[in-house]
Amino acid sequence: MASREFRLRTGSDLVTDLTAEVTAFCHGRRDGLLNIFSPHATAGVALIETGSGTEVDLAATIERMWPVEARYAHSHGSRGHGRDHVVPAFVSPSIVIPVIEGRPALGTWQSVVIVDTNRDNPDRRVRLSFIAS
Amino acid sequence: MASREFRLRTGSDLVTDLTAEVTAFCHGRRDGLLNIFSPHATAGVALIETGSGTEVDLAATIERMWPVEARYAHSHGSRGHGRDHVVPAFVSPSIVIPVIEGRPALGTWQSVVIVDTNRDNPDRRVRLSFIAS
Amino acid sequence: MASREFRLRTGSDLVTDLTAEVTAFCHGRRDGLLNIFSPHATAGVALIETGSGTEVDLAATIERMWPVEARYAHSHGSRGHGRDHVVPAFVSPSIVIPVIEGRPALGTWQSVVIVDTNRDNPDRRVRLSFIAS
Repeated sequence: MASREFRLRTGSDLVTDLTAEVTAFCHGRRDGLLNIFSPHATAGVALIETGSGTEVDLAATIERMWPVEARYAHSHGSRGHGRDHVVPAFVSPSIVIPVIEGRPALGTWQSVVIVDTNRDNPDRRVRLSFIAS
Repeated sequence: MASREFRLRTGSDLVTDLTAEVTAFCHGRRDGLLNIFSPHATAGVALIETGSGTEVDLAATIERMWPVEARYAHSHGSRGHGRDHVVPAFVSPSIVIPVIEGRPALGTWQSVVIVDTNRDNPDRRVRLSFIAS
Repeated sequence: MASREFRLRTGSDLVTDLTAEVTAFCHGRRDGLLNIFSPHATAGVALIETGSGTEVDLAATIERMWPVEARYAHSHGSRGHGRDHVVPAFVSPSIVIPVIEGRPALGTWQSVVIVDTNRDNPDRRVRLSFIAS
């Protein structure tokens, strides 16, 4: 298995696009499966279209489901930090995508993104792992 | 890795059962992992019981979380199309299941389904990829 | 592929921690991918921090999204059992994590848990499957 962890800065952005890093990591590889994994309890990985408003709609969804003003049992950190810990139960921090002829077999409108509601920790890591038969 | 993309027609159905295609694809294979991947920004893959009302409850859940009448920043296409792009952040378009003795190791009540809220695009693709050590 | 199914008792707990079983299963293995799979239509697998309140916040999220008092089309079993069948569309029963040097490459605050809203069935199974190139 080829595996590499890299660092990125999400800052205050909910959505950070990883597609370029994923594509570069797959270049030249055989057919296989790629795992994209975020080793954080407050971030998820998703495949969405970027640049057409879905980032805004995703932020609205999260605020509607987990209002920052609500009370959370997990209550240390900034206001609303408790929700940061619940979101990854629904937006999983791990996803697998097929790699065909050295390219991630994404659809035309799919980008790989990290979904990070946690503004207390702008420095993040993502591990890419590739396996072939 | 063995990988094959096939086409299906979801039409106006939210849930389309893929279990027969998945089972056929696994037939005769060694123990390994199967990835079921939908290369669309507006469809997800899930494991649910079919035929006992859960399709209706899933539709109600989606309408409650993402009302078709709500305003979405992603606003081209039919009314409510913006939600079609948010759902896959929560119902991921990729899932992995174990294959044991040539059969997907699903539980008794689990079926593999595509969840497709998008009625503008009834023609869909799914890629099945199998890997063994 | 090395694959093993084990039994556990979730009882009336929404969240049951599997990290010790996962860690033991990975011990001594090469680098590869681990699939954690629950063969039930009413349970999911997630990576969350345990012991700091997130279990309570997750329970509150589920009750808010799928009130036990609501009407469900899937209506056999205990009151609210219909929701037990919808939750796994959002909290998938399958997740993949990388294994590096014989250890699951989890982040400091990530634990592997089963999320089980179904109190009618306290006896559960989980399948762990490991694959390396």
